[in-house]
Amino acid sequence: MCIFLRFCRILTMGEKFFTSKEAAKAVGCSLRQLQYWREKGVVVPTIQGSGTGRSIYYSQSDVVQLAIMEYLLSVGLSFSEASRGLKELIKIDTDYANRETKKRWMLCWDEKKRSLVLEEFDRVCAIALMDKGQAVIPIWLDIIHDLLQQKSSL
Amino acid sequence: MCIFLRFCRILTMGEKFFTSKEAAKAVGCSLRQLQYWREKGVVVPTIQGSGTGRSIYYSQSDVVQLAIMEYLLSVGLSFSEASRGLKELIKIDTDYANRETKKRWMLCWDEKKRSLVLEEFDRVCAIALMDKGQAVIPIWLDIIHDLLQQKSSL
Repeated sequence: MCIFLRFCRILTMGEKFFTSKEAAKAVGCSLRQLQYWREKGVVVPTIQGSGTGRSIYYSQSDVVQLAIMEYLLSVGLSFSEASRGLKELIKIDTDYANRETKKRWMLCWDEKKRSLVLEEFDRVCAIALMDKGQAVIPIWLDIIHDLLQQKSSL
Repeated sequence: MCIFLRFCRILTMGEKFFTSKEAAKAVGCSLRQLQYWREKGVVVPTIQGSGTGRSIYYSQSDVVQLAIMEYLLSVGLSFSEASRGLKELIKIDTDYANRETKKRWMLCWDEKKRSLVLEEFDRVCAIALMDKGQAVIPIWLDIIHDLLQQKSSL
């Protein structure tokens, strides 16, 4: 489907869309970051025409993805870890953009895999990991959604 | 003091030194990583001559620093966060290289500073942070020392 028809179809569904500038403002990151994440395929806007770059529009779900990415970087994760975490989360939790579900996740150290893995947040499990000196990085979608709401009119 | 005299002085004190290759093996990282950290001033070997690079020797303390850096990167932190954490730790805990003291630290999210801060590990405080959905990354020197000991003859 051509980009224009796709845009019209989505507009008629009444979903709100964000320009790069609006999305960056809503999330609290720079336009440069957004561009980098686009180029790296981390958060690709739903509407993205080729050429001048004016036809870039982020859907509400895209903006939530941006907010998750921004959060993961803000807690000190590397770009590759943050993007891996985001990719995994939106794959497992297809409802991530829904403000009502407010699911809670955590990235935690897996001794066998020797890497961070995404799991549903479980307080007992998180404390047990910490008691072994292992990292726990909560990804609470309610907090991320609340922050987004404070910053924008989402 | 010239590099040769410095080297002789240290050798007579009986401290064990490691070539880059030995240090990389002891820590479980690559020679390239060591070189990069040297260039960036993150872990600078105690003995480092100019020129060919053959006169590079890591002290036992240097190797512990390498192990801390390797650990921080392995839990997914970005290079800048990991090196900042390491710098802060060796500044606060001058006894970091002593296997007997086994101090426990944690990097945790500071809401006011909007960044990770280093604090002495405190289980109650760590759980309280996690209960607010905030990241806790333990840096337990006993574990890091134990891992080093397993990997090398330190």
